[in-house]
Amino acid sequence: MNEELKIGVIGTGMIGQDHIRRITEVLSGARVTAVTDADRTRAEEVGARRGATVFADSASLISSDDVDAVMICSWGPAHIDAVLPALAAGKPVFVEKPLATSQGDCVKIIEAEVAAGKRLIQIGYMRRYDAAYAALKATIDSGAIGAPLMYHSAHRNASVPPDLYTDDMAIADTMVHDIDVARFLLDEEVSQIRVIAGRKNSVGGALRDPILGVMEMSGGAIVTVEVSVNIGYGYDIRGEVSGETGTAELAESNHVVVKSGDGFAGRVPADWRERFIEAYDTEVQDFIDNARKGVVGGPSAWDGYAIQVVSDAGIEAARSGRAVPCAMIEKPTLYN
Amino acid sequence: MNEELKIGVIGTGMIGQDHIRRITEVLSGARVTAVTDADRTRAEEVGARRGATVFADSASLISSDDVDAVMICSWGPAHIDAVLPALAAGKPVFVEKPLATSQGDCVKIIEAEVAAGKRLIQIGYMRRYDAAYAALKATIDSGAIGAPLMYHSAHRNASVPPDLYTDDMAIADTMVHDIDVARFLLDEEVSQIRVIAGRKNSVGGALRDPILGVMEMSGGAIVTVEVSVNIGYGYDIRGEVSGETGTAELAESNHVVVKSGDGFAGRVPADWRERFIEAYDTEVQDFIDNARKGVVGGPSAWDGYAIQVVSDAGIEAARSGRAVPCAMIEKPTLYN
Amino acid sequence: MNEELKIGVIGTGMIGQDHIRRITEVLSGARVTAVTDADRTRAEEVGARRGATVFADSASLISSDDVDAVMICSWGPAHIDAVLPALAAGKPVFVEKPLATSQGDCVKIIEAEVAAGKRLIQIGYMRRYDAAYAALKATIDSGAIGAPLMYHSAHRNASVPPDLYTDDMAIADTMVHDIDVARFLLDEEVSQIRVIAGRKNSVGGALRDPILGVMEMSGGAIVTVEVSVNIGYGYDIRGEVSGETGTAELAESNHVVVKSGDGFAGRVPADWRERFIEAYDTEVQDFIDNARKGVVGGPSAWDGYAIQVVSDAGIEAARSGRAVPCAMIEKPTLYN
Amino acid sequence: MNEELKIGVIGTGMIGQDHIRRITEVLSGARVTAVTDADRTRAEEVGARRGATVFADSASLISSDDVDAVMICSWGPAHIDAVLPALAAGKPVFVEKPLATSQGDCVKIIEAEVAAGKRLIQIGYMRRYDAAYAALKATIDSGAIGAPLMYHSAHRNASVPPDLYTDDMAIADTMVHDIDVARFLLDEEVSQIRVIAGRKNSVGGALRDPILGVMEMSGGAIVTVEVSVNIGYGYDIRGEVSGETGTAELAESNHVVVKSGDGFAGRVPADWRERFIEAYDTEVQDFIDNARKGVVGGPSAWDGYAIQVVSDAGIEAARSGRAVPCAMIEKPTLYN
Repeated sequence: MNEELKIGVIGTGMIGQDHIRRITEVLSGARVTAVTDADRTRAEEVGARRGATVFADSASLISSDDVDAVMICSWGPAHIDAVLPALAAGKPVFVEKPLATSQGDCVKIIEAEVAAGKRLIQIGYMRRYDAAYAALKATIDSGAIGAPLMYHSAHRNASVPPDLYTDDMAIADTMVHDIDVARFLLDEEVSQIRVIAGRKNSVGGALRDPILGVMEMSGGAIVTVEVSVNIGYGYDIRGEVSGETGTAELAESNHVVVKSGDGFAGRVPADWRERFIEAYDTEVQDFIDNARKGVVGGPSAWDGYAIQVVSDAGIEAARSGRAVPCAMIEKPTLYN
Repeated sequence: MNEELKIGVIGTGMIGQDHIRRITEVLSGARVTAVTDADRTRAEEVGARRGATVFADSASLISSDDVDAVMICSWGPAHIDAVLPALAAGKPVFVEKPLATSQGDCVKIIEAEVAAGKRLIQIGYMRRYDAAYAALKATIDSGAIGAPLMYHSAHRNASVPPDLYTDDMAIADTMVHDIDVARFLLDEEVSQIRVIAGRKNSVGGALRDPILGVMEMSGGAIVTVEVSVNIGYGYDIRGEVSGETGTAELAESNHVVVKSGDGFAGRVPADWRERFIEAYDTEVQDFIDNARKGVVGGPSAWDGYAIQVVSDAGIEAARSGRAVPCAMIEKPTLYN
Repeated sequence: MNEELKIGVIGTGMIGQDHIRRITEVLSGARVTAVTDADRTRAEEVGARRGATVFADSASLISSDDVDAVMICSWGPAHIDAVLPALAAGKPVFVEKPLATSQGDCVKIIEAEVAAGKRLIQIGYMRRYDAAYAALKATIDSGAIGAPLMYHSAHRNASVPPDLYTDDMAIADTMVHDIDVARFLLDEEVSQIRVIAGRKNSVGGALRDPILGVMEMSGGAIVTVEVSVNIGYGYDIRGEVSGETGTAELAESNHVVVKSGDGFAGRVPADWRERFIEAYDTEVQDFIDNARKGVVGGPSAWDGYAIQVVSDAGIEAARSGRAVPCAMIEKPTLYN
Repeated sequence: MNEELKIGVIGTGMIGQDHIRRITEVLSGARVTAVTDADRTRAEEVGARRGATVFADSASLISSDDVDAVMICSWGPAHIDAVLPALAAGKPVFVEKPLATSQGDCVKIIEAEVAAGKRLIQIGYMRRYDAAYAALKATIDSGAIGAPLMYHSAHRNASVPPDLYTDDMAIADTMVHDIDVARFLLDEEVSQIRVIAGRKNSVGGALRDPILGVMEMSGGAIVTVEVSVNIGYGYDIRGEVSGETGTAELAESNHVVVKSGDGFAGRVPADWRERFIEAYDTEVQDFIDNARKGVVGGPSAWDGYAIQVVSDAGIEAARSGRAVPCAMIEKPTLYN
């Protein structure tokens, strides 16, 4: 356990470079020894700057003796082709979200991990590592508000790129975080989902925004999710659980209250980096600490699969206007 | 206008006595000159204590020269039989909610008021007179958050009497306030309503509690309402509007922040009296001030009718599990 | 007690007219039957508008059978010449602050009231009737924070008129409210006071602003008061008590929290009217309710005297830079 | 800069072990290569567990080629005997507070550092690295509240050990943090200090608690500091700056708001570890990052000296009841 963990990073785009910076400059106990990228030039540049060996492809990186653990930051469709070999090699894998881009691929990964007989995959749903969500979860688990019965989540983004962001992404890229958090906080799966869209925010033109997700959970809890992606004022993440005997909600995250002009004011984070940078640090440190002990924790392949099922159902629900059930395979005991 | 308004009160039960106390001991410009009640003994007792003449029935009270304005605090089914004669007499009427107990009766009242050619009815939906809701409305109207797109309301009650409170009352008696507020804040009617019930709060036994109302408004806004009536910790009224460029929500109403034991704490109102007592004072003072000028304002018979339509639809929606449309008669110009 | 209280108002300037409006249009149980003012024309105008008899002077107003209680709103130096005759007439008196303009005059008034053998005077220190201060006092008295040991008060005013407001007024007109509140909350008299002035707010030119008052109380508690009168952003009244086992402070008074631009925000009152209008209503209603029962409560002549002593000491302390003791006469048992 | 910083730690008691844990398990870019302690057995134990060489004394540790930078965590009186050799060796030094235990020793250290011609010393006043204080400082520097004129600080501790904690420690160990922060936020030195003690908290027996410090700053700002060390409810650090056009204060640090029982509630930190653990991490990471670049930042030897002067004056002020001036040597240009 005293040895530093040698990490090979697949995908050296924005998020990959950010994780490399994190491992190198912020966290303890690991270093990046290997990189690869479909864009060889980019991989060379990053490798040279960070002192990491550049590999021609995922397969050779994964099989290198200089790689103890693998971090997958390539684009979603390429994940499965890196995850399966890493599982085959028995090396701990950190996969950025999504786990894969279809339920079928998620199931293949689950089957491979189950065959391996132990958890090897952690997925980058970082909200579980946020101190505020962790405190919310701890409050629920303490019994302070009784059994949770409803959860209201709001996911507000200052703006999205009008030429890139689509109606489906409001669910597949944005609401997935709220889906993950709802499952995490309530310890229930999603049984069915409705998505209701009303009047559109004129700022976003034709974009179906905001939307309301309504989820009925397997244990009977009810979840509502507001997703607003062009609200202008900041990146505002809200969550309130209503239980049998009380409620618990995320507090504001401002450090200072200022009075000036005609009122008092506190800061709202500008974007997800400001709001969740510490959660990213914490999730990767957790991966490193676990990997050095030979284990893997955090969001699992099962979580990645379940979120994919709900996301797919949500997209169908938004299109059809109907409630769509979320049918899942039986949960392997590995994930209990 | 310098003359005090002489008010006749029909119904001297709990709420009637409370309004008599309010008019006599708290507010300005009116006095209670006449009372009547189906329970003659109770009317005699109250009349004697407050120095008001006791009338045998509504009709004689309404037609008395000693009555400038009528306040109806009898039980719901009796409202119509007092409202119509008061309209016929051309006297301003304050009716406690509900206006009547069926859509048909509400329409009859509307027709009578339209025939009278001027507004004579104010209904006791007092939330509009609450300083916090008024500030929320003013914020929306100021344009500070852009056009409103979503509204999330929470209506939490410490407890309800298990032998008296029914599933339907969660809509007809409790959620009606949120329906009123949603229409007031957004200036839209309700187009359709769904009611979703999940796992029941074990504190309430068989009561369907909590419930989630989801309303789609005529202008496209979306409204969610959490109703929890056995949540134990207090009477907690929340509301947050999400607009095109910002959000606005009701602040906590505590006067003091205390630190002791293991944290900081603020008071949640114990019940609706504590939370809304000033709103009751303000609504009745407004009725008095208006009546002395010969006009009537506040929530109208139209509001009473519209809320009845949505309440009926909500009860059907809760039973059927389906979205139920809220079909209304054409709105008379009197109410524009 | 069923009779309305007939109030004679001495002084029909701004505050006098505001109290007349309050009694006439807002409160219950009283009407203004008589007015007088050094400016006869103004008295005539107000009397005509409000239907009150105009008297030539205080003496004739006080002795009129049409006056049950007296409200003194003339300027400070004229108070004593109205208070003493009102005491002699045995009529309840509401005196706007200050009670008088010298300790000697305050003592004369106390002696006259003691001779009368019952409390007849209420002084307009309205903060004690503010719901937030009342909750703070109730918290202390409940024992929730243990015995109070320190109190920090901040009195911030958006701006003062540069040609009228003087260094002494920061103590005699502004800090007196904090002195009153400190005595009220802690149930102790002030033993000595220091006033420390540092760098001046450039907005106020030569005005000695802000200042810090440091008071040592008779029971050993320590009080600090920040007075800032040109702070621009609003009228901001803060107060925090630190006790043996906890703290209690005034909460913000905003009704709504708005998120827009780059943060969340709540309103700070614009001026003392917005912040304390309900306290003014409550204090005068209390005077009316008491007077109709033949008693007087609220801030007493003793309070007026004690505040005068501390204010005088504060002015001397500010000039000398030294701690100045607050020597008082023995407290008559009437005020225990 | 790519090489890890090799740190030698002098003093392996509680705080020394905590820093070793921090460097080894949390932070990036350094490792502990050497330890020493007056208690040889303890040093052996820690060295064995952490894989660090144990040195017989400070001198040999400081001169070792395996030590790039020195961290001094011995008790205060021993600091100077480690600091001076480290300066002589030209190695960056992190010294836990206090810098030394007398003004004379602080001056000797300053003279040695000035002679070295560059800053080599960072002192462990970690509050400057707290995200909330940093945001408060940034708010002031942004001009959002105008020039700062007053600062009110509260330093509340749940409890102190009755047999170990003395009256003087309330200033020398506790208030020193507020003195540091006041100097940091306002960019002014302390000109004079008064300390006022009132009624004692009965929980602390004979301990002079709470106390109020009143400081006049070199630029004219006024600072008040409440120190309460047996307040029971938690570790509560407050700070509010009042400026020419606004105010700024530290927000509460709770992550979650819970409603249950009879109110809403948020957590207050239990102790300084909970409140400032991230500030400790940040200050040491800053020391490491700087040292790897060959520089030193953060609180300087000058800060350590200035705080010592004010602390000494504060103790004298508490004993004498008088204002005590804070006379300092001329500030060397190295610290500008």
